[in-house]
Amino acid sequence: MSKGKENRTSDQAAPSCDWGSKAAEGKGKGSPGGKPAARQRTRLHRFDSKSYHWSGVKEEAYKKPDGSWADVVRHTLIGGRGENTDFHLRYFEVAPGGMTSLERHTHEHVVVGVRGRGVCHVRKKDYAIGLLDVIYIPPGAEHQLRNEGKRPFGFFCIVDAERDRPMPVEDM
Amino acid sequence: MSKGKENRTSDQAAPSCDWGSKAAEGKGKGSPGGKPAARQRTRLHRFDSKSYHWSGVKEEAYKKPDGSWADVVRHTLIGGRGENTDFHLRYFEVAPGGMTSLERHTHEHVVVGVRGRGVCHVRKKDYAIGLLDVIYIPPGAEHQLRNEGKRPFGFFCIVDAERDRPMPVEDM
Repeated sequence: MSKGKENRTSDQAAPSCDWGSKAAEGKGKGSPGGKPAARQRTRLHRFDSKSYHWSGVKEEAYKKPDGSWADVVRHTLIGGRGENTDFHLRYFEVAPGGMTSLERHTHEHVVVGVRGRGVCHVRKKDYAIGLLDVIYIPPGAEHQLRNEGKRPFGFFCIVDAERDRPMPVEDM
Repeated sequence: MSKGKENRTSDQAAPSCDWGSKAAEGKGKGSPGGKPAARQRTRLHRFDSKSYHWSGVKEEAYKKPDGSWADVVRHTLIGGRGENTDFHLRYFEVAPGGMTSLERHTHEHVVVGVRGRGVCHVRKKDYAIGLLDVIYIPPGAEHQLRNEGKRPFGFFCIVDAERDRPMPVEDM
Protein backbone atom coordinates (compact mmCIF):
# COMPACT_ATOMS: atom_id res chain seq x y z
CA MET A 1 0.00 0.00 0.00
CA SER A 2 3.05 2.18 -0.10
CA LYS A 3 2.01 3.72 -3.35
CA GLY A 4 -1.31 5.02 -2.20
CA LYS A 5 -3.39 2.53 -4.12
CA GLU A 6 -5.81 0.09 -2.64
CA ASN A 7 -6.51 -3.56 -3.09
CA ARG A 8 -3.30 -4.44 -4.83
CA THR A 9 -3.32 -7.97 -6.10
CA SER A 10 0.36 -8.27 -6.72
CA ASP A 11 0.75 -10.87 -4.01
CA GLN A 12 -2.55 -12.56 -4.56
CA ALA A 13 -3.61 -15.32 -6.85
CA ALA A 14 -4.58 -14.34 -10.35
CA PRO A 15 -8.15 -13.14 -10.39
CA SER A 16 -10.05 -14.73 -13.22
CA CYS A 17 -11.18 -11.36 -14.45
CA ASP A 18 -7.82 -9.67 -14.55
CA TRP A 19 -6.54 -8.35 -17.85
CA GLY A 20 -3.85 -10.96 -17.67
CA SER A 21 -2.74 -13.86 -15.60
CA LYS A 22 -0.35 -12.88 -12.86
CA ALA A 23 1.17 -16.32 -13.21
CA ALA A 24 2.05 -15.48 -16.78
CA GLU A 25 2.92 -11.84 -16.33
CA GLY A 26 4.59 -12.05 -12.97
CA LYS A 27 4.74 -9.29 -10.44
CA GLY A 28 6.88 -7.03 -12.52
CA LYS A 29 9.66 -7.41 -9.99
CA GLY A 30 12.49 -9.85 -10.24
CA SER A 31 12.49 -10.74 -6.59
CA PRO A 32 10.50 -10.03 -3.45
CA GLY A 33 12.91 -7.24 -2.61
CA GLY A 34 11.98 -5.42 -5.76
CA LYS A 35 15.39 -5.83 -7.39
CA PRO A 36 16.08 -7.91 -10.45
CA ALA A 37 17.15 -11.41 -9.51
CA ALA A 38 20.01 -11.30 -11.97
CA ARG A 39 21.55 -9.01 -14.51
CA GLN A 40 18.92 -8.50 -17.12
CA ARG A 41 19.64 -8.95 -20.79
CA THR A 42 18.55 -6.69 -23.58
CA ARG A 43 15.54 -8.25 -25.24
CA LEU A 44 14.44 -7.48 -28.76
CA HIS A 45 11.02 -8.70 -29.78
CA ARG A 46 10.91 -8.39 -33.54
CA PHE A 47 7.47 -7.62 -34.93
CA ASP A 48 6.05 -9.71 -37.76
CA SER A 49 3.66 -7.51 -39.72
CA LYS A 50 2.02 -10.51 -41.38
CA SER A 51 1.08 -12.45 -38.26
CA TYR A 52 1.10 -9.67 -35.68
CA HIS A 53 3.30 -11.75 -33.49
CA TRP A 54 6.57 -10.80 -31.83
CA SER A 55 9.64 -13.01 -31.65
CA GLY A 56 10.02 -14.62 -28.26
CA VAL A 57 6.44 -13.87 -27.22
CA LYS A 58 3.72 -16.50 -27.21
CA GLU A 59 0.08 -15.94 -27.89
CA GLU A 60 -2.02 -16.83 -24.86
CA ALA A 61 -5.62 -16.82 -23.82
CA TYR A 62 -6.85 -13.41 -22.69
CA LYS A 63 -7.95 -14.99 -19.42
CA LYS A 64 -9.98 -17.93 -18.22
CA PRO A 65 -13.34 -18.34 -19.94
CA ASP A 66 -16.07 -16.92 -17.72
CA GLY A 67 -18.68 -15.88 -20.25
CA SER A 68 -17.80 -12.19 -19.97
CA TRP A 69 -15.55 -11.99 -23.02
CA ALA A 70 -15.05 -13.63 -26.40
CA ASP A 71 -12.40 -14.04 -29.07
CA VAL A 72 -9.50 -12.26 -27.41
CA VAL A 73 -5.86 -13.31 -27.26
CA ARG A 74 -2.99 -11.83 -25.31
CA HIS A 75 0.74 -11.38 -25.93
CA THR A 76 2.72 -10.29 -22.90
CA LEU A 77 5.61 -8.23 -24.23
CA ILE A 78 6.90 -6.81 -20.98
CA GLY A 79 6.15 -8.47 -17.65
CA GLY A 80 6.95 -11.70 -15.88
CA ARG A 81 10.53 -12.14 -17.02
CA GLY A 82 12.31 -10.58 -14.11
CA GLU A 83 11.94 -7.03 -15.32
CA ASN A 84 11.91 -4.37 -12.64
CA THR A 85 9.52 -2.09 -14.51
CA ASP A 86 6.58 -0.56 -12.69
CA PHE A 87 4.47 -1.37 -15.74
CA HIS A 88 3.56 -4.20 -18.05
CA LEU A 89 3.06 -3.97 -21.79
CA ARG A 90 0.63 -6.35 -23.40
CA TYR A 91 -0.85 -6.74 -26.88
CA PHE A 92 -4.42 -7.91 -27.11
CA GLU A 93 -6.17 -8.92 -30.27
CA VAL A 94 -9.94 -9.12 -30.59
CA ALA A 95 -11.42 -11.10 -33.46
CA PRO A 96 -14.41 -9.72 -35.37
CA GLY A 97 -17.42 -9.76 -33.06
CA GLY A 98 -15.25 -10.27 -29.99
CA MET A 99 -14.97 -8.21 -26.83
CA THR A 100 -13.09 -7.94 -23.59
CA SER A 101 -14.89 -8.04 -20.25
CA LEU A 102 -16.86 -5.00 -19.22
CA GLU A 103 -15.14 -4.10 -15.98
CA ARG A 104 -13.76 -1.42 -13.73
CA HIS A 105 -10.79 -1.09 -11.39
CA THR A 106 -8.74 1.56 -9.67
CA HIS A 107 -5.69 1.22 -11.90
CA GLU A 108 -5.66 3.04 -15.19
CA HIS A 109 -5.31 1.65 -18.67
CA VAL A 110 -3.44 3.21 -21.52
CA VAL A 111 -4.58 1.69 -24.80
CA VAL A 112 -2.82 2.23 -28.12
CA GLY A 113 -4.35 1.06 -31.39
CA VAL A 114 -2.07 -1.32 -33.29
CA ARG A 115 -4.11 -3.36 -35.77
CA GLY A 116 -7.34 -2.53 -37.55
CA ARG A 117 -10.07 -0.60 -35.87
CA GLY A 118 -12.16 -1.16 -32.78
CA VAL A 119 -14.27 0.47 -30.14
CA CYS A 120 -13.19 1.46 -26.68
CA HIS A 121 -16.20 1.87 -24.44
CA VAL A 122 -15.57 4.03 -21.37
CA ARG A 123 -18.20 5.39 -19.00
CA LYS A 124 -21.04 4.78 -21.44
CA LYS A 125 -19.26 6.44 -24.35
CA ASP A 126 -17.79 4.68 -27.36
CA TYR A 127 -14.49 5.84 -28.82
CA ALA A 128 -13.39 4.60 -32.23
CA ILE A 129 -9.78 3.44 -32.02
CA GLY A 130 -7.48 3.23 -35.02
CA LEU A 131 -3.77 2.88 -35.60
CA LEU A 132 -1.69 4.58 -32.90
CA ASP A 133 -4.62 6.38 -31.33
CA VAL A 134 -3.92 6.61 -27.60
CA ILE A 135 -6.69 6.48 -25.03
CA TYR A 136 -6.36 6.98 -21.29
CA ILE A 137 -8.95 5.10 -19.24
CA PRO A 138 -9.23 6.76 -15.83
CA PRO A 139 -9.44 5.07 -12.43
CA GLY A 140 -12.79 3.47 -11.69
CA ALA A 141 -14.17 3.92 -15.19
CA GLU A 142 -16.11 0.99 -16.58
CA HIS A 143 -14.67 0.00 -19.91
CA GLN A 144 -14.64 -2.61 -22.62
CA LEU A 145 -12.81 -3.10 -25.92
CA ARG A 146 -14.91 -4.41 -28.78
CA ASN A 147 -14.39 -5.38 -32.38
CA GLU A 148 -17.44 -4.47 -34.40
CA GLY A 149 -15.65 -4.78 -37.74
CA LYS A 150 -14.67 -7.60 -40.04
CA ARG A 151 -10.93 -7.64 -39.46
CA PRO A 152 -8.84 -8.24 -36.33
CA PHE A 153 -8.57 -5.39 -33.86
CA GLY A 154 -5.29 -5.29 -31.93
CA PHE A 155 -4.05 -2.89 -29.29
CA PHE A 156 -1.35 -2.38 -26.74
CA CYS A 157 -2.53 -2.05 -23.17
CA ILE A 158 -0.09 -0.60 -20.67
CA VAL A 159 -0.86 -1.06 -16.97
CA ASP A 160 0.84 -0.70 -13.62
CA ALA A 161 2.74 -3.84 -12.65
CA GLU A 162 1.02 -3.70 -9.26
CA ARG A 163 -2.67 -3.24 -9.79
CA ASP A 164 -6.00 -3.85 -8.19
CA ARG A 165 -8.46 -6.57 -8.99
CA PRO A 166 -10.89 -5.77 -11.83
CA MET A 167 -14.55 -5.88 -10.92
CA PRO A 168 -17.03 -7.08 -13.50
CA VAL A 169 -19.80 -4.70 -14.48
CA GLU A 170 -22.98 -6.64 -15.01
CA ASP A 171 -25.18 -4.07 -16.69
CA MET A 172 -24.29 -2.40 -19.95
CA MET B 1 12.53 4.30 -1.58
CA SER B 2 9.46 2.25 -0.88
CA LYS B 3 9.75 0.45 -4.16
CA GLY B 4 13.28 -0.74 -3.75
CA LYS B 5 14.84 1.59 -6.25
CA GLU B 6 17.57 4.08 -5.54
CA ASN B 7 18.19 7.67 -6.43
CA ARG B 8 14.65 8.50 -7.39
CA THR B 9 14.38 11.93 -8.89
CA SER B 10 10.64 12.25 -8.64
CA ASP B 11 10.88 14.99 -6.06
CA GLN B 12 13.96 16.60 -7.46
CA ALA B 13 14.46 19.21 -10.10
CA ALA B 14 14.55 18.03 -13.68
CA PRO B 15 18.00 16.76 -14.52
CA SER B 16 19.17 18.18 -17.79
CA CYS B 17 20.01 14.76 -19.10
CA ASP B 18 16.72 13.07 -18.35
CA TRP B 19 14.68 11.59 -21.17
CA GLY B 20 12.08 14.21 -20.48
CA SER B 21 11.48 17.27 -18.42
CA LYS B 22 9.86 16.52 -15.10
CA ALA B 23 8.29 19.95 -15.30
CA ALA B 24 6.54 18.87 -18.44
CA GLU B 25 5.82 15.28 -17.53
CA GLY B 26 5.03 15.75 -13.87
CA LYS B 27 5.52 13.19 -11.21
CA GLY B 28 3.02 10.75 -12.58
CA LYS B 29 0.87 11.31 -9.53
CA GLY B 30 -1.97 13.72 -9.24
CA SER B 31 -1.00 14.90 -5.81
CA PRO B 32 1.75 14.37 -3.25
CA GLY B 33 -0.36 11.70 -1.60
CA GLY B 34 -0.28 9.61 -4.73
CA LYS B 35 -3.98 9.97 -5.44
CA PRO B 36 -5.45 11.81 -8.38
CA ALA B 37 -6.29 15.37 -7.45
CA ALA B 38 -9.67 15.11 -9.10
CA ARG B 39 -11.78 12.68 -11.06
CA GLN B 40 -9.86 12.00 -14.21
CA ARG B 41 -11.45 12.23 -17.60
CA THR B 42 -11.09 9.80 -20.43
CA ARG B 43 -8.56 11.23 -22.87
CA LEU B 44 -8.34 10.25 -26.50
CA HIS B 45 -5.27 11.37 -28.39
CA ARG B 46 -6.08 10.84 -32.03
CA PHE B 47 -3.08 9.96 -34.17
CA ASP B 48 -2.40 11.86 -37.39
CA SER B 49 -0.54 9.54 -39.73
CA LYS B 50 0.61 12.42 -41.92
CA SER B 51 2.26 14.56 -39.25
CA TYR B 52 2.92 11.92 -36.58
CA HIS B 53 1.29 14.15 -34.04
CA TRP B 54 -1.48 13.32 -31.58
CA SER B 55 -4.42 15.56 -30.81
CA GLY B 56 -3.99 17.37 -27.52
CA VAL B 57 -0.26 16.66 -27.34
CA LYS B 58 2.36 19.27 -28.14
CA GLU B 59 5.74 18.65 -29.66
CA GLU B 60 8.50 19.70 -27.30
CA ALA B 61 12.25 19.74 -27.17
CA TYR B 62 13.75 16.40 -26.16
CA LYS B 63 15.61 18.17 -23.38
CA LYS B 64 17.85 21.16 -22.89
CA PRO B 65 20.68 21.40 -25.39
CA ASP B 66 23.88 20.10 -23.81
CA GLY B 67 25.81 18.88 -26.83
CA SER B 68 25.06 15.22 -26.12
CA TRP B 69 22.12 14.88 -28.51
CA ALA B 70 20.80 16.31 -31.75
CA ASP B 71 17.57 16.59 -33.72
CA VAL B 72 15.18 14.92 -31.29
CA VAL B 73 11.68 16.02 -30.33
CA ARG B 74 9.37 14.68 -27.67
CA HIS B 75 5.60 14.21 -27.32
CA THR B 76 4.42 13.32 -23.83
CA LEU B 77 1.32 11.19 -24.31
CA ILE B 78 0.86 9.98 -20.75
CA GLY B 79 2.38 11.84 -17.81
CA GLY B 80 2.02 15.19 -16.13
CA ARG B 81 -1.74 15.57 -16.40
CA GLY B 82 -2.75 14.21 -13.03
CA GLU B 83 -2.65 10.60 -14.06
CA ASN B 84 -1.95 8.11 -11.32
CA THR B 85 -0.07 5.71 -13.57
CA ASP B 86 3.23 4.26 -12.44
CA PHE B 87 4.55 4.85 -15.95
CA HIS B 88 4.84 7.53 -18.58
CA LEU B 89 4.41 7.08 -22.31
CA ARG B 90 6.37 9.35 -24.59
CA TYR B 91 6.94 9.51 -28.34
CA PHE B 92 10.35 10.64 -29.51
CA GLU B 93 11.28 11.44 -33.05
CA VAL B 94 14.83 11.59 -34.28
CA ALA B 95 15.56 13.39 -37.54
CA PRO B 96 18.02 11.85 -40.04
CA GLY B 97 21.50 12.02 -38.54
CA GLY B 98 20.16 12.74 -35.08
CA MET B 99 20.65 10.88 -31.83
CA THR B 100 19.62 10.81 -28.19
CA SER B 101 22.18 11.10 -25.41
CA LEU B 102 24.38 8.11 -24.71
CA GLU B 103 23.49 7.42 -21.09
CA ARG B 104 22.71 4.90 -18.42
CA HIS B 105 20.40 4.72 -15.41
CA THR B 106 18.83 2.18 -13.08
CA HIS B 107 15.34 2.42 -14.53
CA GLU B 108 14.52 0.41 -17.60
CA HIS B 109 13.33 1.59 -20.97
CA VAL B 110 10.83 -0.13 -23.19
CA VAL B 111 11.13 1.19 -26.73
CA VAL B 112 8.62 0.47 -29.49
CA GLY B 113 9.32 1.42 -33.09
CA VAL B 114 6.63 3.70 -34.52
CA ARG B 115 8.00 5.58 -37.53
CA GLY B 116 10.69 4.64 -40.01
CA ARG B 117 13.77 2.78 -38.91
CA GLY B 118 16.54 3.50 -36.46
CA VAL B 119 19.23 2.02 -34.33
CA CYS B 120 19.03 1.24 -30.65
CA HIS B 121 22.51 0.96 -29.19
CA VAL B 122 22.65 -1.02 -25.93
CA ARG B 123 25.77 -2.26 -24.20
CA LYS B 124 27.95 -1.80 -27.28
CA LYS B 125 25.52 -3.62 -29.56
CA ASP B 126 23.37 -2.04 -32.23
CA TYR B 127 19.82 -3.26 -32.78
CA ALA B 128 17.89 -2.22 -35.89
CA ILE B 129 14.44 -1.03 -34.87
CA GLY B 130 11.48 -0.97 -37.24
CA LEU B 131 7.74 -0.64 -36.91
CA LEU B 132 6.39 -2.16 -33.69
CA ASP B 133 9.62 -3.88 -32.77
CA VAL B 134 9.86 -3.89 -28.98
CA ILE B 135 13.16 -3.62 -27.17
CA TYR B 136 13.75 -3.88 -23.44
CA ILE B 137 16.75 -1.91 -22.19
CA PRO B 138 17.86 -3.36 -18.85
CA PRO B 139 18.88 -1.46 -15.72
CA GLY B 140 22.28 0.15 -15.93
CA ALA B 141 22.80 -0.52 -19.61
CA GLU B 142 24.31 2.29 -21.60
CA HIS B 143 22.09 3.09 -24.54
CA GLN B 144 21.39 5.53 -27.32
CA LEU B 145 18.83 5.85 -30.09
CA ARG B 146 20.14 6.96 -33.46
CA ASN B 147 18.76 7.71 -36.88
CA GLU B 148 21.24 6.65 -39.53
CA GLY B 149 18.69 6.79 -42.33
CA LYS B 150 17.17 9.48 -44.51
CA ARG B 151 13.67 9.58 -43.02
CA PRO B 152 12.40 10.38 -39.54
CA PHE B 153 12.75 7.68 -36.90
CA GLY B 154 10.05 7.72 -34.23
CA PHE B 155 9.50 5.50 -31.23
CA PHE B 156 7.50 5.16 -28.07
CA CYS B 157 9.52 5.03 -24.88
CA ILE B 158 7.76 3.76 -21.77
CA VAL B 159 9.40 4.44 -18.42
CA ASP B 160 8.57 4.30 -14.73
CA ALA B 161 6.94 7.51 -13.53
CA GLU B 162 9.43 7.56 -10.66
CA ARG B 163 12.88 7.03 -12.04
CA ASP B 164 16.49 7.71 -11.32
CA ARG B 165 18.66 10.35 -12.88
CA PRO B 166 20.35 9.37 -16.15
CA MET B 167 24.12 9.50 -16.17
CA PRO B 168 25.90 10.53 -19.34
CA VAL B 169 28.36 8.06 -20.81
CA GLU B 170 31.30 9.93 -22.23
CA ASP B 171 33.05 7.24 -24.20
CA MET B 172 31.47 5.33 -27.04
